[in-house]
Amino acid sequence: MMETNQKKISDAIIRRLPRYYKQLCDLESAGVDHISSQSLGERLEVKASQIRQDLNSFGGFGQQGYGYPVTELKNRIAKILNIDKQWKMVIIGAGNIGRALSSYGEFSKEGFEILALFDSNPNLVGKRVGDLEILDVKKLAEYINENDVDIMALTVPQSAVKELMFIAEKSNVGAVWNFSPADIFSPKVVVENIHLTDSLMSLSYHLGNKSK
Amino acid sequence: MMETNQKKISDAIIRRLPRYYKQLCDLESAGVDHISSQSLGERLEVKASQIRQDLNSFGGFGQQGYGYPVTELKNRIAKILNIDKQWKMVIIGAGNIGRALSSYGEFSKEGFEILALFDSNPNLVGKRVGDLEILDVKKLAEYINENDVDIMALTVPQSAVKELMFIAEKSNVGAVWNFSPADIFSPKVVVENIHLTDSLMSLSYHLGNKSK
Repeated sequence: MMETNQKKISDAIIRRLPRYYKQLCDLESAGVDHISSQSLGERLEVKASQIRQDLNSFGGFGQQGYGYPVTELKNRIAKILNIDKQWKMVIIGAGNIGRALSSYGEFSKEGFEILALFDSNPNLVGKRVGDLEILDVKKLAEYINENDVDIMALTVPQSAVKELMFIAEKSNVGAVWNFSPADIFSPKVVVENIHLTDSLMSLSYHLGNKSK
Repeated sequence: MMETNQKKISDAIIRRLPRYYKQLCDLESAGVDHISSQSLGERLEVKASQIRQDLNSFGGFGQQGYGYPVTELKNRIAKILNIDKQWKMVIIGAGNIGRALSSYGEFSKEGFEILALFDSNPNLVGKRVGDLEILDVKKLAEYINENDVDIMALTVPQSAVKELMFIAEKSNVGAVWNFSPADIFSPKVVVENIHLTDSLMSLSYHLGNKSK
Protein backbone atom coordinates (compact mmCIF):
# COMPACT_ATOMS: atom_id res chain seq x y z
CA MET A 1 0.00 0.00 0.00
CA MET A 2 2.80 2.39 0.85
CA GLU A 3 4.38 1.74 -2.54
CA THR A 4 1.37 3.02 -4.43
CA ASN A 5 0.84 5.91 -2.02
CA GLN A 6 4.37 7.12 -2.52
CA LYS A 7 3.74 7.97 -6.16
CA LYS A 8 1.49 10.85 -5.18
CA ILE A 9 3.67 12.40 -2.50
CA SER A 10 4.43 16.03 -3.28
CA ASP A 11 7.91 17.42 -3.32
CA ALA A 12 7.00 19.83 -0.51
CA ILE A 13 6.24 16.90 1.80
CA ILE A 14 9.45 15.11 0.84
CA ARG A 15 11.38 18.26 1.72
CA ARG A 16 9.77 18.44 5.16
CA LEU A 17 10.44 14.78 6.02
CA PRO A 18 14.19 15.20 6.68
CA ARG A 19 13.35 17.91 9.21
CA TYR A 20 10.87 15.64 10.97
CA TYR A 21 13.46 12.87 10.86
CA LYS A 22 16.14 15.05 12.41
CA GLN A 23 13.88 16.20 15.24
CA LEU A 24 12.90 12.60 15.93
CA CYS A 25 16.58 11.60 16.11
CA ASP A 26 17.17 14.40 18.64
CA LEU A 27 14.10 13.36 20.64
CA GLU A 28 15.19 9.73 20.62
CA SER A 29 18.66 10.71 21.87
CA ALA A 30 16.98 12.73 24.62
CA GLY A 31 15.07 9.60 25.69
CA VAL A 32 11.61 10.80 24.59
CA ASP A 33 9.19 7.91 23.85
CA HIS A 34 6.20 9.67 22.37
CA ILE A 35 5.55 13.09 20.92
CA SER A 36 2.33 14.82 19.89
CA SER A 37 2.00 16.52 16.52
CA GLN A 38 1.49 19.71 18.56
CA SER A 39 4.88 19.47 20.30
CA LEU A 40 6.66 18.35 17.13
CA GLY A 41 5.08 21.29 15.31
CA GLU A 42 6.25 23.76 17.93
CA ARG A 43 9.82 22.53 17.64
CA LEU A 44 9.73 22.89 13.86
CA GLU A 45 7.49 25.95 13.52
CA VAL A 46 5.14 23.85 11.41
CA LYS A 47 1.41 23.58 12.18
CA ALA A 48 0.38 20.38 13.96
CA SER A 49 -2.29 19.84 11.31
CA GLN A 50 0.38 20.02 8.61
CA ILE A 51 2.45 17.35 10.33
CA ARG A 52 -0.57 15.07 10.74
CA GLN A 53 -1.52 15.58 7.10
CA ASP A 54 2.04 14.96 5.85
CA LEU A 55 2.40 11.76 7.86
CA ASN A 56 -1.05 10.54 6.89
CA SER A 57 0.03 10.52 3.24
CA PHE A 58 2.14 7.49 4.13
CA GLY A 59 -0.60 5.63 5.97
CA GLY A 60 -1.41 5.63 9.69
CA PHE A 61 1.12 6.60 12.32
CA GLY A 62 0.55 6.83 16.04
CA GLN A 63 -2.60 6.44 18.04
CA GLN A 64 -5.06 9.20 18.88
CA GLY A 65 -4.22 10.68 22.28
CA TYR A 66 -0.83 9.01 22.73
CA GLY A 67 1.18 10.97 20.22
CA TYR A 68 3.63 9.39 17.82
CA PRO A 69 6.04 6.69 19.01
CA VAL A 70 9.36 8.47 18.41
CA THR A 71 11.62 5.57 17.41
CA GLU A 72 9.02 3.86 15.24
CA LEU A 73 8.17 7.06 13.41
CA LYS A 74 11.85 7.88 12.95
CA ASN A 75 12.50 4.44 11.46
CA ARG A 76 9.50 4.65 9.15
CA ILE A 77 10.56 8.05 7.84
CA ALA A 78 14.08 6.69 7.30
CA LYS A 79 12.51 3.90 5.23
CA ILE A 80 10.37 6.33 3.21
CA LEU A 81 13.43 8.50 2.50
CA ASN A 82 15.46 5.38 1.65
CA ILE A 83 18.14 6.35 4.14
CA ASP A 84 17.85 2.91 5.75
CA LYS A 85 19.89 1.81 2.71
CA GLN A 86 23.53 2.48 1.89
CA TRP A 87 24.26 4.77 -1.06
CA LYS A 88 27.60 5.14 -2.79
CA MET A 89 28.73 8.58 -3.85
CA VAL A 90 31.69 10.02 -5.72
CA ILE A 91 32.63 13.69 -5.81
CA ILE A 92 33.74 15.25 -9.08
CA GLY A 93 35.91 18.30 -8.51
CA ALA A 94 38.56 18.29 -5.79
CA GLY A 95 38.41 22.04 -5.19
CA ASN A 96 37.38 23.70 -1.94
CA ILE A 97 33.75 22.60 -1.93
CA GLY A 98 34.57 19.07 -3.12
CA ARG A 99 37.17 18.64 -0.40
CA ALA A 100 34.85 20.06 2.24
CA LEU A 101 32.07 17.64 1.26
CA SER A 102 34.44 14.70 1.25
CA SER A 103 35.50 15.48 4.82
CA TYR A 104 31.97 16.09 6.13
CA GLY A 105 31.19 13.22 8.49
CA GLU A 106 27.41 13.74 8.63
CA PHE A 107 26.75 12.11 5.28
CA SER A 108 28.18 8.71 6.14
CA LYS A 109 26.13 8.69 9.36
CA GLU A 110 22.99 8.81 7.20
CA GLY A 111 24.17 6.06 4.86
CA PHE A 112 25.88 8.10 2.14
CA GLU A 113 29.34 6.68 1.66
CA ILE A 114 31.87 8.74 -0.28
CA LEU A 115 34.10 6.39 -2.26
CA ALA A 116 36.42 8.73 -4.15
CA LEU A 117 37.11 12.20 -5.47
CA PHE A 118 37.76 12.87 -9.14
CA ASP A 119 39.49 15.76 -10.84
CA SER A 120 40.84 16.59 -14.28
CA ASN A 121 43.86 18.49 -12.94
CA PRO A 122 46.96 16.24 -13.23
CA ASN A 123 48.52 18.07 -10.27
CA LEU A 124 45.69 16.84 -8.05
CA VAL A 125 45.24 13.30 -9.38
CA GLY A 126 46.94 10.79 -7.09
CA LYS A 127 46.88 13.11 -4.06
CA ARG A 128 44.79 12.25 -1.02
CA VAL A 129 42.10 14.16 0.83
CA GLY A 130 41.77 12.47 4.19
CA ASP A 131 41.20 8.77 3.45
CA LEU A 132 40.21 9.36 -0.15
CA GLU A 133 42.33 9.30 -3.27
CA ILE A 134 41.82 11.85 -6.02
CA LEU A 135 41.32 9.90 -9.23
CA ASP A 136 41.52 10.96 -12.86
CA VAL A 137 38.12 12.00 -14.19
CA LYS A 138 38.95 10.05 -17.37
CA LYS A 139 38.36 6.89 -15.33
CA LEU A 140 35.01 8.09 -13.97
CA ALA A 141 32.63 6.13 -16.22
CA GLU A 142 34.52 2.88 -15.67
CA TYR A 143 34.72 3.50 -11.91
CA ILE A 144 30.99 4.17 -11.61
CA ASN A 145 30.03 0.92 -13.26
CA GLU A 146 32.65 -1.21 -11.50
CA ASN A 147 31.76 0.15 -8.07
CA ASP A 148 27.99 0.53 -8.49
CA VAL A 149 28.10 4.23 -7.69
CA ASP A 150 24.65 5.69 -7.01
CA ILE A 151 25.35 9.41 -6.73
CA MET A 152 27.73 11.80 -8.51
CA ALA A 153 28.27 15.06 -6.62
CA LEU A 154 29.39 17.80 -9.01
CA THR A 155 31.58 20.53 -7.54
CA VAL A 156 32.93 21.70 -10.87
CA PRO A 157 32.74 24.85 -13.01
CA GLN A 158 29.74 25.20 -15.30
CA SER A 159 31.90 24.44 -18.35
CA ALA A 160 32.56 20.88 -17.12
CA VAL A 161 28.93 19.97 -16.53
CA LYS A 162 27.85 18.94 -20.02
CA GLU A 163 30.47 16.22 -20.38
CA LEU A 164 29.86 14.94 -16.86
CA MET A 165 26.11 14.73 -17.45
CA PHE A 166 26.84 12.76 -20.61
CA ILE A 167 28.79 10.27 -18.48
CA ALA A 168 26.06 10.24 -15.82
CA GLU A 169 23.35 9.44 -18.36
CA LYS A 170 25.39 6.74 -20.11
CA SER A 171 26.44 5.04 -16.88
CA ASN A 172 24.47 3.31 -14.15
CA VAL A 173 24.61 6.26 -11.80
CA GLY A 174 21.16 7.16 -10.56
CA ALA A 175 21.51 10.68 -9.24
CA VAL A 176 23.47 13.89 -9.53
CA TRP A 177 23.95 16.24 -6.60
CA ASN A 178 24.81 19.46 -8.34
CA PHE A 179 26.83 22.24 -6.69
CA SER A 180 27.88 23.82 -9.99
CA PRO A 181 26.16 27.04 -11.08
CA ALA A 182 24.57 25.19 -14.03
CA ASP A 183 20.85 24.47 -14.08
CA ILE A 184 20.79 20.75 -14.82
CA PHE A 185 17.79 18.90 -16.20
CA SER A 186 17.88 15.22 -17.03
CA PRO A 187 15.19 12.81 -18.12
CA LYS A 188 17.31 9.87 -16.92
CA VAL A 189 19.02 10.89 -13.72
CA VAL A 190 17.59 12.33 -10.49
CA VAL A 191 19.06 15.81 -9.98
CA GLU A 192 19.20 17.86 -6.81
CA ASN A 193 20.68 21.34 -7.10
CA ILE A 194 22.47 23.28 -4.38
CA HIS A 195 22.94 26.75 -5.76
CA LEU A 196 24.80 28.62 -3.06
CA THR A 197 24.85 31.96 -4.85
CA ASP A 198 21.09 31.77 -5.53
CA SER A 199 20.54 31.22 -1.84
CA LEU A 200 22.62 34.30 -1.02
CA MET A 201 20.60 36.33 -3.52
CA SER A 202 17.38 35.30 -1.84
CA LEU A 203 18.95 36.44 1.43
CA SER A 204 19.96 39.81 0.00
CA TYR A 205 16.47 40.34 -1.43
CA HIS A 206 14.98 40.00 2.05
CA LEU A 207 17.84 41.85 3.68
CA GLY A 208 17.47 44.86 1.38
CA ASN A 209 13.69 45.01 1.76
CA LYS A 210 14.00 44.71 5.52
CA SER A 211 16.30 47.68 5.94
CA LYS A 212 14.10 49.97 3.80
CA MET B 1 5.76 51.79 -7.48
CA MET B 2 8.23 48.96 -7.42
CA GLU B 3 8.70 49.45 -3.69
CA THR B 4 5.07 48.77 -2.90
CA ASN B 5 4.83 45.92 -5.40
CA GLN B 6 7.74 44.15 -3.80
CA LYS B 7 5.80 43.52 -0.62
CA LYS B 8 3.53 41.03 -2.35
CA ILE B 9 6.18 39.03 -4.18
CA SER B 10 6.03 35.35 -3.29
CA ASP B 11 9.04 33.40 -2.13
CA ALA B 12 8.72 31.10 -5.16
CA ILE B 13 9.27 34.05 -7.51
CA ILE B 14 12.23 35.31 -5.50
CA ARG B 15 13.80 31.86 -5.77
CA ARG B 16 13.41 31.86 -9.56
CA LEU B 17 14.91 35.34 -10.06
CA PRO B 18 18.54 34.29 -9.43
CA ARG B 19 18.16 31.68 -12.19
CA TYR B 20 16.82 34.28 -14.61
CA TYR B 21 19.62 36.60 -13.57
CA LYS B 22 22.26 33.97 -14.20
CA GLN B 23 20.91 33.11 -17.65
CA LEU B 24 20.82 36.81 -18.53
CA CYS B 25 24.46 37.18 -17.45
CA ASP B 26 25.39 34.26 -19.71
CA LEU B 27 23.37 35.73 -22.59
CA GLU B 28 24.97 39.14 -22.11
CA SER B 29 28.45 37.55 -22.18
CA ALA B 30 27.47 35.78 -25.39
CA GLY B 31 26.54 39.13 -26.94
CA VAL B 32 22.78 38.54 -27.08
CA ASP B 33 20.75 41.79 -27.11
CA HIS B 34 17.17 40.61 -26.76
CA ILE B 35 15.54 37.36 -25.68
CA SER B 36 11.94 36.20 -25.82
CA SER B 37 10.24 34.67 -22.80
CA GLN B 38 9.92 31.55 -24.98
CA SER B 39 13.70 31.19 -25.48
CA LEU B 40 14.47 32.10 -21.89
CA GLY B 41 11.93 29.50 -20.77
CA GLU B 42 13.49 26.79 -22.92
CA ARG B 43 16.91 27.46 -21.42
CA LEU B 44 15.51 27.22 -17.89
CA GLU B 45 12.82 24.57 -18.40
CA VAL B 46 10.29 27.08 -17.14
CA LYS B 47 7.12 27.92 -19.08
CA ALA B 48 7.26 31.20 -21.02
CA SER B 49 3.98 32.23 -19.37
CA GLN B 50 5.56 31.71 -15.96
CA ILE B 51 8.48 33.96 -16.82
CA ARG B 52 6.18 36.69 -18.15
CA GLN B 53 4.01 36.45 -15.04
CA ASP B 54 7.02 36.52 -12.69
CA LEU B 55 8.53 39.56 -14.38
CA ASN B 56 5.19 41.36 -14.56
CA SER B 57 4.99 41.31 -10.77
CA PHE B 58 7.75 43.92 -10.83
CA GLY B 59 6.13 46.15 -13.43
CA GLY B 60 6.61 46.15 -17.20
CA PHE B 61 9.68 44.74 -18.88
CA GLY B 62 10.33 44.46 -22.59
CA GLN B 63 8.14 45.31 -25.50
CA GLN B 64 5.66 42.97 -27.17
CA GLY B 65 7.32 41.25 -30.13
CA TYR B 66 10.88 42.37 -29.41
CA GLY B 67 11.60 40.18 -26.41
CA TYR B 68 13.34 41.40 -23.29
CA PRO B 69 16.40 43.64 -23.55
CA VAL B 70 19.02 41.39 -21.95
CA THR B 71 21.25 43.90 -20.17
CA GLU B 72 18.39 46.07 -18.94
CA LEU B 73 16.47 43.11 -17.58
CA LYS B 74 19.62 41.72 -15.95
CA ASN B 75 20.28 45.05 -14.23
CA ARG B 76 16.70 45.40 -13.05
CA ILE B 77 16.70 41.91 -11.56
CA ALA B 78 20.01 42.69 -9.84
CA LYS B 79 18.32 45.75 -8.34
CA ILE B 80 15.28 43.77 -7.21
CA LEU B 81 17.53 41.15 -5.58
CA ASN B 82 19.63 43.92 -4.02
CA ILE B 83 22.81 42.47 -5.50
CA ASP B 84 23.62 45.86 -7.01
CA LYS B 85 24.68 46.69 -3.44
CA GLN B 86 27.69 45.47 -1.46
CA TRP B 87 27.01 43.16 1.49
CA LYS B 88 29.49 42.31 4.22
CA MET B 89 29.64 38.76 5.49
CA VAL B 90 31.53 36.92 8.21
CA ILE B 91 31.79 33.16 8.50
CA ILE B 92 31.48 31.53 11.91
CA GLY B 93 33.19 28.14 12.00
CA ALA B 94 36.56 27.64 10.33
CA GLY B 95 36.02 23.95 9.60
CA ASN B 96 35.89 22.40 6.14
CA ILE B 97 32.68 24.07 4.97
CA GLY B 98 33.62 27.45 6.46
CA ARG B 99 37.00 27.39 4.77
CA ALA B 100 35.50 26.29 1.46
CA LEU B 101 32.98 29.15 1.54
CA SER B 102 35.66 31.67 2.42
CA SER B 103 37.69 30.63 -0.63
CA TYR B 104 34.75 30.57 -3.05
CA GLY B 105 35.26 33.48 -5.44
CA GLU B 106 31.72 33.56 -6.84
CA PHE B 107 30.24 35.37 -3.86
CA SER B 108 32.40 38.47 -4.10
CA LYS B 109 31.58 38.72 -7.83
CA GLU B 110 27.93 39.18 -6.84
CA GLY B 111 28.69 41.74 -4.16
CA PHE B 112 29.04 39.53 -1.09
CA GLU B 113 32.34 40.39 0.55
CA ILE B 114 33.70 38.00 3.16
CA LEU B 115 35.50 40.01 5.84
CA ALA B 116 36.65 37.39 8.32
CA LEU B 117 36.31 33.89 9.70
CA PHE B 118 35.59 33.23 13.37
CA ASP B 119 36.17 30.14 15.47
CA SER B 120 36.16 29.20 19.14
CA ASN B 121 39.09 26.81 18.82
CA PRO B 122 42.23 28.54 20.20
CA ASN B 123 44.37 26.41 17.86
CA LEU B 124 42.68 28.00 14.87
CA VAL B 125 42.40 31.60 16.08
CA GLY B 126 45.14 33.75 14.52
CA LYS B 127 45.72 31.37 11.60
CA ARG B 128 44.91 32.46 8.06
CA VAL B 129 42.71 30.99 5.36
CA GLY B 130 43.80 32.62 2.12
CA ASP B 131 43.62 36.37 2.75
CA LEU B 132 41.41 36.05 5.80
CA GLU B 133 42.36 35.84 9.44
CA ILE B 134 40.56 33.49 11.80
CA LEU B 135 39.34 35.60 14.72
CA ASP B 136 38.17 34.62 18.17
CA VAL B 137 34.41 34.17 18.28
CA LYS B 138 34.41 36.05 21.60
CA LYS B 139 35.05 39.20 19.57
CA LEU B 140 32.20 38.53 17.14
CA ALA B 141 29.55 40.90 18.53
CA GLU B 142 32.01 43.78 18.72
CA TYR B 143 33.35 43.05 15.23
CA ILE B 144 29.87 42.97 13.69
CA ASN B 145 28.96 46.37 15.02
CA GLU B 146 32.31 48.00 14.28
CA ASN B 147 32.40 46.72 10.72
CA ASP B 148 28.68 46.96 9.85
CA VAL B 149 28.47 43.27 9.03
CA ASP B 150 25.25 42.35 7.21
CA ILE B 151 25.40 38.57 7.07
CA MET B 152 26.64 35.88 9.47
CA ALA B 153 27.24 32.52 7.78
CA LEU B 154 27.06 29.71 10.33
CA THR B 155 29.13 26.61 9.59
CA VAL B 156 29.11 25.34 13.15
CA PRO B 157 27.72 22.32 15.02
CA GLN B 158 24.11 22.52 16.17
CA SER B 159 25.24 23.01 19.79
CA ALA B 160 26.82 26.38 18.96
CA VAL B 161 23.79 27.84 17.21
CA LYS B 162 21.79 29.14 20.17
CA GLU B 163 24.54 31.40 21.46
CA LEU B 164 25.35 32.68 17.97
CA MET B 165 21.70 33.49 17.29
CA PHE B 166 21.65 35.42 20.56
CA ILE B 167 24.56 37.49 19.28
CA ALA B 168 22.91 37.90 15.87
CA GLU B 169 19.68 39.18 17.37
CA LYS B 170 21.43 41.57 19.79
CA SER B 171 23.75 42.98 17.13
CA ASN B 172 23.11 44.93 13.96
CA VAL B 173 23.54 41.93 11.68
CA GLY B 174 20.59 41.58 9.34
CA ALA B 175 20.79 38.00 8.13
CA VAL B 176 22.01 34.53 8.97
CA TRP B 177 23.05 32.06 6.30
CA ASN B 178 22.76 28.78 8.13
CA PHE B 179 24.75 25.68 7.18
CA SER B 180 24.37 24.04 10.58
CA PRO B 181 21.89 21.17 10.96
CA ALA B 182 19.73 23.34 13.27
CA ASP B 183 16.37 24.65 12.11
CA ILE B 184 16.67 28.35 12.87
CA PHE B 185 13.72 30.70 13.25
CA SER B 186 14.12 34.33 14.13
CA PRO B 187 11.64 37.17 14.36
CA LYS B 188 14.48 39.70 14.00
CA VAL B 189 16.97 38.33 11.52
CA VAL B 190 16.47 37.04 7.97
CA VAL B 191 17.44 33.36 7.88
CA GLU B 192 18.31 31.23 4.88
CA ASN B 193 19.02 27.56 5.55
CA ILE B 194 21.28 25.30 3.51
CA HIS B 195 20.70 21.83 4.88
CA LEU B 196 23.04 19.61 2.90
CA THR B 197 21.95 16.37 4.52
CA ASP B 198 18.26 17.17 3.92
CA SER B 199 19.07 17.70 0.27
CA LEU B 200 20.79 14.30 0.09
CA MET B 201 17.74 12.70 1.73
CA SER B 202 15.47 14.18 -0.90
CA LEU B 203 17.84 12.72 -3.49
CA SER B 204 17.75 9.26 -1.91
CA TYR B 205 13.95 9.35 -1.73
CA HIS B 206 13.76 9.84 -5.49
CA LEU B 207 16.68 7.49 -6.13
CA GLY B 208 15.08 4.65 -4.18
CA ASN B 209 11.69 5.11 -5.78
CA LYS B 210 13.26 5.26 -9.23
CA SER B 211 15.04 1.94 -8.95
CA LYS B 212 11.93 0.10 -7.76
